[in-house]
Amino acid sequence: MADPTRDILETFDNPFPHRNFVVETIAPEFTSMCPKTGQPDFGTLTITYVADKVCYELKSLKMYLQQYRNHGAYYERVTNMILDDLVAVTQPRWMKIEAAFTPRGGIRTNVIVEHGRRPE
Amino acid sequence: MADPTRDILETFDNPFPHRNFVVETIAPEFTSMCPKTGQPDFGTLTITYVADKVCYELKSLKMYLQQYRNHGAYYERVTNMILDDLVAVTQPRWMKIEAAFTPRGGIRTNVIVEHGRRPE
Amino acid sequence: MADPTRDILETFDNPFPHRNFVVETIAPEFTSMCPKTGQPDFGTLTITYVADKVCYELKSLKMYLQQYRNHGAYYERVTNMILDDLVAVTQPRWMKIEAAFTPRGGIRTNVIVEHGRRPE
Amino acid sequence: MADPTRDILETFDNPFPHRNFVVETIAPEFTSMCPKTGQPDFGTLTITYVADKVCYELKSLKMYLQQYRNHGAYYERVTNMILDDLVAVTQPRWMKIEAAFTPRGGIRTNVIVEHGRRPE
Amino acid sequence: MADPTRDILETFDNPFPHRNFVVETIAPEFTSMCPKTGQPDFGTLTITYVADKVCYELKSLKMYLQQYRNHGAYYERVTNMILDDLVAVTQPRWMKIEAAFTPRGGIRTNVIVEHGRRPE
Amino acid sequence: MADPTRDILETFDNPFPHRNFVVETIAPEFTSMCPKTGQPDFGTLTITYVADKVCYELKSLKMYLQQYRNHGAYYERVTNMILDDLVAVTQPRWMKIEAAFTPRGGIRTNVIVEHGRRPE
Amino acid sequence: MADPTRDILETFDNPFPHRNFVVETIAPEFTSMCPKTGQPDFGTLTITYVADKVCYELKSLKMYLQQYRNHGAYYERVTNMILDDLVAVTQPRWMKIEAAFTPRGGIRTNVIVEHGRRPE
Amino acid sequence: MADPTRDILETFDNPFPHRNFVVETIAPEFTSMCPKTGQPDFGTLTITYVADKVCYELKSLKMYLQQYRNHGAYYERVTNMILDDLVAVTQPRWMKIEAAFTPRGGIRTNVIVEHGRRPE
Amino acid sequence: MADPTRDILETFDNPFPHRNFVVETIAPEFTSMCPKTGQPDFGTLTITYVADKVCYELKSLKMYLQQYRNHGAYYERVTNMILDDLVAVTQPRWMKIEAAFTPRGGIRTNVIVEHGRRPE
Amino acid sequence: MADPTRDILETFDNPFPHRNFVVETIAPEFTSMCPKTGQPDFGTLTITYVADKVCYELKSLKMYLQQYRNHGAYYERVTNMILDDLVAVTQPRWMKIEAAFTPRGGIRTNVIVEHGRRPE
Repeated sequence: MADPTRDILETFDNPFPHRNFVVETIAPEFTSMCPKTGQPDFGTLTITYVADKVCYELKSLKMYLQQYRNHGAYYERVTNMILDDLVAVTQPRWMKIEAAFTPRGGIRTNVIVEHGRRPE
Repeated sequence: MADPTRDILETFDNPFPHRNFVVETIAPEFTSMCPKTGQPDFGTLTITYVADKVCYELKSLKMYLQQYRNHGAYYERVTNMILDDLVAVTQPRWMKIEAAFTPRGGIRTNVIVEHGRRPE
Repeated sequence: MADPTRDILETFDNPFPHRNFVVETIAPEFTSMCPKTGQPDFGTLTITYVADKVCYELKSLKMYLQQYRNHGAYYERVTNMILDDLVAVTQPRWMKIEAAFTPRGGIRTNVIVEHGRRPE
Repeated sequence: MADPTRDILETFDNPFPHRNFVVETIAPEFTSMCPKTGQPDFGTLTITYVADKVCYELKSLKMYLQQYRNHGAYYERVTNMILDDLVAVTQPRWMKIEAAFTPRGGIRTNVIVEHGRRPE
Repeated sequence: MADPTRDILETFDNPFPHRNFVVETIAPEFTSMCPKTGQPDFGTLTITYVADKVCYELKSLKMYLQQYRNHGAYYERVTNMILDDLVAVTQPRWMKIEAAFTPRGGIRTNVIVEHGRRPE
Repeated sequence: MADPTRDILETFDNPFPHRNFVVETIAPEFTSMCPKTGQPDFGTLTITYVADKVCYELKSLKMYLQQYRNHGAYYERVTNMILDDLVAVTQPRWMKIEAAFTPRGGIRTNVIVEHGRRPE
Repeated sequence: MADPTRDILETFDNPFPHRNFVVETIAPEFTSMCPKTGQPDFGTLTITYVADKVCYELKSLKMYLQQYRNHGAYYERVTNMILDDLVAVTQPRWMKIEAAFTPRGGIRTNVIVEHGRRPE
Repeated sequence: MADPTRDILETFDNPFPHRNFVVETIAPEFTSMCPKTGQPDFGTLTITYVADKVCYELKSLKMYLQQYRNHGAYYERVTNMILDDLVAVTQPRWMKIEAAFTPRGGIRTNVIVEHGRRPE
Repeated sequence: MADPTRDILETFDNPFPHRNFVVETIAPEFTSMCPKTGQPDFGTLTITYVADKVCYELKSLKMYLQQYRNHGAYYERVTNMILDDLVAVTQPRWMKIEAAFTPRGGIRTNVIVEHGRRPE
Repeated sequence: MADPTRDILETFDNPFPHRNFVVETIAPEFTSMCPKTGQPDFGTLTITYVADKVCYELKSLKMYLQQYRNHGAYYERVTNMILDDLVAVTQPRWMKIEAAFTPRGGIRTNVIVEHGRRPE
């Protein structure tokens, strides 16, 4: 299966670019594969950002995230990769992703990555 | 159906204008239409503000919000529009709107918009 | 029925005036009347303060609040009135009241009023 | 606006008709209009049934329920009407609808209607 | 203040009398007075019934219950009185009232009264 | 300190003896002493009953339960003792006590005792 | 991708066959594909059974369920199929599967299927 | 390490043998070892019973359960073993054990075993 | 009964004095007597501190708190007294006590007292 | 049994060292022994850190924590020891451990230790 690509992400013009407003997208159905064991991983992604010129379109975001369904990637790497892709496509004033993965071996893991500094 | 209009909003004199007090209004029955799919959207609006000369009257706020029932508007736009209307009518010292929409396609979205800076 | 009066409030000497300690009183059985519709309103008052020379006595506070049972007052006004009365009687270093009213017409309202600045 | 019609409901063949299995559909975004006040009502419908020859198709059920968006009907009547329509179209071995409406005037109402007797 | 009277209760014709359906009304803002101490009591009434010829009208039920606001009555008596009144006016096939009162002296009390036997 | 005595319990005439209604009393502030370790025990008592000729008076019940504050008794014994006392004084048609004690050594215990059979 | 096969399921001898004990397995990470839209579905499976001669082995159950990851099947069909497979392999005295799927289009669905009658 | 032994369990005379009362013991800190992987398992045991001549003493129950800390046993076997031991030592009129184990591989398991029939 | 004394408190050497670490102790079974009514009060104490040279030993803290079981003291006074005692014995870099008392007369009270400033 | 050793911990290269991202690991199945009573203790460890050159590998972290299963250590000491070990092996830019232990004698304890200052 092909690697996830940011080309699938679509954007639309920020309707209120003169205002620093926050959009929070919660995606509780994220799933990828563990590259070591080949077992599926599950998690909830919370993406928060202040758009600059463009916003990401939600349906294309869903399709983008579904590319990871059969893609192998560690927690730390996959969260950083998604941030890099979303930043590249939307060039936001600020963006943060919190990924909360379900327990494995009695231990669960969250990864929090951030781009830029949240405008006041 | 006619577009939502701010003319429907009524106000009353701030009874304690010398004090910066906060009013929070939670409206969990907000509904509008998706302009792309024609499907209804649902959400909870939380409006928080520090009034200056006037407060909005709650029943007129309810009627104002019901205008969106058959009105098509994207999440980001509708939240900003409501803020603009409430600011225009009440001229508050500060106002914030948090809109939490119900899930679509397994993804849910919150939009947070703010006018001015919250007085300490 | 007579208007609510602060004369009913009793105080006792602050037992530890050299220390800025916080007292929080939560009164979930507050009820008053809507002056427009004549219908009862219900809410939870949370009073938080740092006493200076005196503390309010809890039983007299309960009796004071019960005076509103058949008294007509809007949310914004009643919350500010109670703050004014409690400040007048106890002269606190700082006081805040959060009033959370139950839903009317699918909308619920909180009012937050504050006197002075919370000591660090 | 036209009255709701059951003609919009689609069905598909029960894939396991030899077994009495239960399908529960929870629709938390139901909304209709109060015929007396013209105000919108909101509620959650829980439809539970044991299919016989056919099951209802979920997307057509969603479209069917959206017909009530601008339709005036009392709680008791609307819940019974929906049961009658779903029974007419799917002829189930058993069906129950629980409708939980949001509060009005500080009071909330549930209506529970049932067709036939649940198979053991 | 006059005693509560059942004359204030209004009814409407049961729209589906051939079906035993259940209506549940939850009234969390019930309040009365303790006849011994003169202090207000608070509670949540849950009224569940199967109508026969008539249903009670919700707004008149609200007005009926508000009559207890300044009326003195013990928990056990008030719950039975309300059942007697509602039964007298609606003649239901079955009715149950559960009254959950808020704590007094660290103890809270529920009273459950029932008229007839719930139809299967 | 003297042993707990049922003489402290007061009753009043059942106001609706022709009806089998249920009274539930929840007392979350019960405390007694462990006879072996001398350490305090804490628990929540839920007393449910159908009165016959008399009901217990709530304030006297509170005073009765407070007698256990410095009284040593094992979980199983204290729950049965209280049931015996309440049955002796009120002669109910049916009574049940559920006692839920807080954890000791990582283990918590509930005791459920019953007198007679709950009337249908 | 190949269809799911029951051949992957492993069993072990029931260690206490003389006793009717219940095993409940909750699998919150079930995912399959919608055959109409090609979109992923997500749900929680709760499998409850009374074993006869053999129990299913948990790791093989996990591998069996993962076969549905890229398999297209409607809610009603997939739940019945899994029941058929587990019954074929373990021949239980009784088995029930409750599948709770996440919302689509604002509506969520549970499917409950059962084999045999639960032993008392 | 030695196998768990029931000899460690102590009992005391049932203080109210003429009454069928229920004792529920909840032990959320149960842990044993998986015999296949050597990894620790964790779970909550809920033991419910109606004593006949004797009750188990709680501290000895705690010591008995701690014997499993470094003992390897599958879920189904360990739950049945504990039931057998407690039945052998206390000879209850009825006993049930529900063991709820924490998730492994995204799947969690409950085992419910019962001895005799619960007295009415 | 004798007054509570701090002499009962034991300490042990801070094992990591070079690090500002925080210990939080939550004691939900605190009980004292109201000096005015003679009725028992109940509450949860949360003690948080950064130790300097010594930490308090937990069992002695439990015994210290049990001294209040039959001791009469108002909320504000008892919370400050406990802080004074713990500060005198442990000389911490910082300490805070939050006492949350259960409702009386429909009103509940929290008292928050602090010694020093929390190290960053 | 040998003392816990940090040698068991494995690391991997930080995949995004140019970014200050946060990893949170929640381990709810931590257990050790009380050195005074020999009884097991249970708790939840939450480890949060910003990696520098390396991250700890999760499976080796699990094995590291399991070393405490039969190791005697007080709450304050064990939490600080684990921090010291993780800091020594991963040399993070910042790390915090919050340990929440289950109740003993009706009192529960949290310990919070921190290394360095969280990067903004």
